[in-house]
Amino acid sequence: MNAKTDLENQNLEVGYDIPAAIGMDEADIQTPCLVLDLDALERNIKKMGDYAKAHGMRHRVHGKMHKSVDVAKLQERLGGSIGVCCQKVSEAEVFVRGGIKDVLVSNQVRDPLKLERLAKLPKLGSRIIVCVDELANVAELSAAAQQQGTELECFVEIDCGAGRCGVNSTADVVTIAQAIDAAANLKFTGIQAYQGAMQHLDSYEERQAKLDIAIAMVKEAADALTEVGLKPELVSGGGTGSYYFESNSGVYNELQCGSYAFMDADYGRILDKDGKRIDQGEWENALFILTTVMSHTKTDKAICDAGLKAQSVDSGLPFIFGRDDVEYIKCSDEHGVISDPQGALKINDKLKLVPGHCDPTCNVHDWYVGVRNGKVESLWPVSARGKAF
Amino acid sequence: MNAKTDLENQNLEVGYDIPAAIGMDEADIQTPCLVLDLDALERNIKKMGDYAKAHGMRHRVHGKMHKSVDVAKLQERLGGSIGVCCQKVSEAEVFVRGGIKDVLVSNQVRDPLKLERLAKLPKLGSRIIVCVDELANVAELSAAAQQQGTELECFVEIDCGAGRCGVNSTADVVTIAQAIDAAANLKFTGIQAYQGAMQHLDSYEERQAKLDIAIAMVKEAADALTEVGLKPELVSGGGTGSYYFESNSGVYNELQCGSYAFMDADYGRILDKDGKRIDQGEWENALFILTTVMSHTKTDKAICDAGLKAQSVDSGLPFIFGRDDVEYIKCSDEHGVISDPQGALKINDKLKLVPGHCDPTCNVHDWYVGVRNGKVESLWPVSARGKAF
Repeated sequence: MNAKTDLENQNLEVGYDIPAAIGMDEADIQTPCLVLDLDALERNIKKMGDYAKAHGMRHRVHGKMHKSVDVAKLQERLGGSIGVCCQKVSEAEVFVRGGIKDVLVSNQVRDPLKLERLAKLPKLGSRIIVCVDELANVAELSAAAQQQGTELECFVEIDCGAGRCGVNSTADVVTIAQAIDAAANLKFTGIQAYQGAMQHLDSYEERQAKLDIAIAMVKEAADALTEVGLKPELVSGGGTGSYYFESNSGVYNELQCGSYAFMDADYGRILDKDGKRIDQGEWENALFILTTVMSHTKTDKAICDAGLKAQSVDSGLPFIFGRDDVEYIKCSDEHGVISDPQGALKINDKLKLVPGHCDPTCNVHDWYVGVRNGKVESLWPVSARGKAF
Repeated sequence: MNAKTDLENQNLEVGYDIPAAIGMDEADIQTPCLVLDLDALERNIKKMGDYAKAHGMRHRVHGKMHKSVDVAKLQERLGGSIGVCCQKVSEAEVFVRGGIKDVLVSNQVRDPLKLERLAKLPKLGSRIIVCVDELANVAELSAAAQQQGTELECFVEIDCGAGRCGVNSTADVVTIAQAIDAAANLKFTGIQAYQGAMQHLDSYEERQAKLDIAIAMVKEAADALTEVGLKPELVSGGGTGSYYFESNSGVYNELQCGSYAFMDADYGRILDKDGKRIDQGEWENALFILTTVMSHTKTDKAICDAGLKAQSVDSGLPFIFGRDDVEYIKCSDEHGVISDPQGALKINDKLKLVPGHCDPTCNVHDWYVGVRNGKVESLWPVSARGKAF
């Protein structure tokens, strides 16, 4: 358990600092806040862990989704994950300080202070890997690692369809890998190839077609590296909408799934190979924004206390879990408007919202309230909340 | 200065806990983070303060926009504001503990623990006002105030067009006001009538038409209250897109502007009565998300380090301040894609983004970095960040 969760020695006030206290009835949780259904969360984690194990894949869970040391450790314990990836140096610092031993910054680090901070991290006893997509970055990383007397491992990042960071040709992969291999205090460890853009395509076949292209690119690069004596130790990628493709590719050996653990409305809508929504069997909704009705002056509309400051709506509005009689239809800063055509809702009624997009929604909150059998069982900080540097 | 800004006794690390240190060159600020142009901020605050004074209006600044005790105190000092409004009990607690003496919760409070916490606040020496839109809430507030031995002041909230909280008829206003007046430990103080839905209409004339309706509703209610001997002491409302209508209404006597101080892309687009964008003369952009280019493997696209976890995109993407050669065109969790057709950007170049919507963007960050003449002059906590309860 990390230091921030050692709540006993702190004087935290429910309703000000924290949304709930351990042992409290679920009905008394202060809203809006994030609630985790611990049973569902544990089942999701175990299921993905079993899948990865059965397919001989390492699972490096995406810690940037939940930003929680406690969840990452649960993923190690129940899901056999080997560590985390994350997107920022400050996030990596949180995970390393929290005791995660294998941390990949699945992103480029170019700023001088960030390079220095990254290069210090191996001193804390964790393996640190970082992504590279430009030759000039090799010298920067090498200089920073030499300055600190540490070793940084490097993945060359391939843009395999996301259109964001990453090199665009096998020739560039090889050139950069060779430079890493030749650089002091750096180690060439493998390939980063996460196809982020396809994860949310509804159709399984469309996702497969995108991944086929990605896998072909990665295979070409891995073969070329092997030819020059730089066979990648790790080939890493794969998300909640694609992990079965990478697992069966014969090319990848490491997954980077994040959202499977919590689920959200946007991921939930995508379809599995039988045409079934993935939140209707493959994964369970484990993350909710708990909200309370606090005004109801129109007969057909209730107003709840979770608006834009309790979630990100970049991927659409939340849906209301377990209810088909009411619908979340509009969002302002502190309010949600809920269509209530039958007048089913009363003041202080609580609803569980499934957020449109879990990652940026979690980043708005300070705490996860873990619930089981109607009681608050855990209160975990969103340890890397706001760690955007 | 509030306790959290007394940085000298704390061991805060730049790039982990804080984005900058006071005295640092602007070029060394760690990104992404919120930067305030202190000169522009002060001019905005002074201008609105002068306007309110010239029009005989009290200005109760909307603290939920910035969630900062330091900014609220600057607004008192330079803009003559009389206190703040905010939307949540936990926000009110932050402002009261920070020394703000007149605090309106411009929202309904119905949850038992929130009622208890609200009723305790007057003990800390501040005037506390809360909104009511249902008769049953009067008894709840009265019981809570009696329990604590305090007095709560109440506004009856009118839904004057936002379609959210608030009563829908003058008869309801009078009934609730009379109940407040008769209730132990409550005082009927006035009317809350903020027309939020019209603030972002581009056309001045369309905004005016909506406000004309609102003003007529409020006038009818105020007259009816006066007739029953409950003349409202305060009639409060008005935002950055409407304050001139309320100020010249002869009905309102208190403004509640928030965004004018920082500005954002969505408000900036609305037009003044001469058809000019309000960020081209009326108000200055004082709030920016500072971001850094960290990948540029495509000749025509640069990738920066500010994505969904550095902002809210509910009201659209940010624009890049002072540049017309580059454009922020896409946003993912930790990245922004910038169109750079001329290849003008280099790794580690910094850009200032004007966020689409300031309120939920500020709520993502922990700190405001105040900059003047190229140096970091202040580092203010977003004191009520995450205070959503």
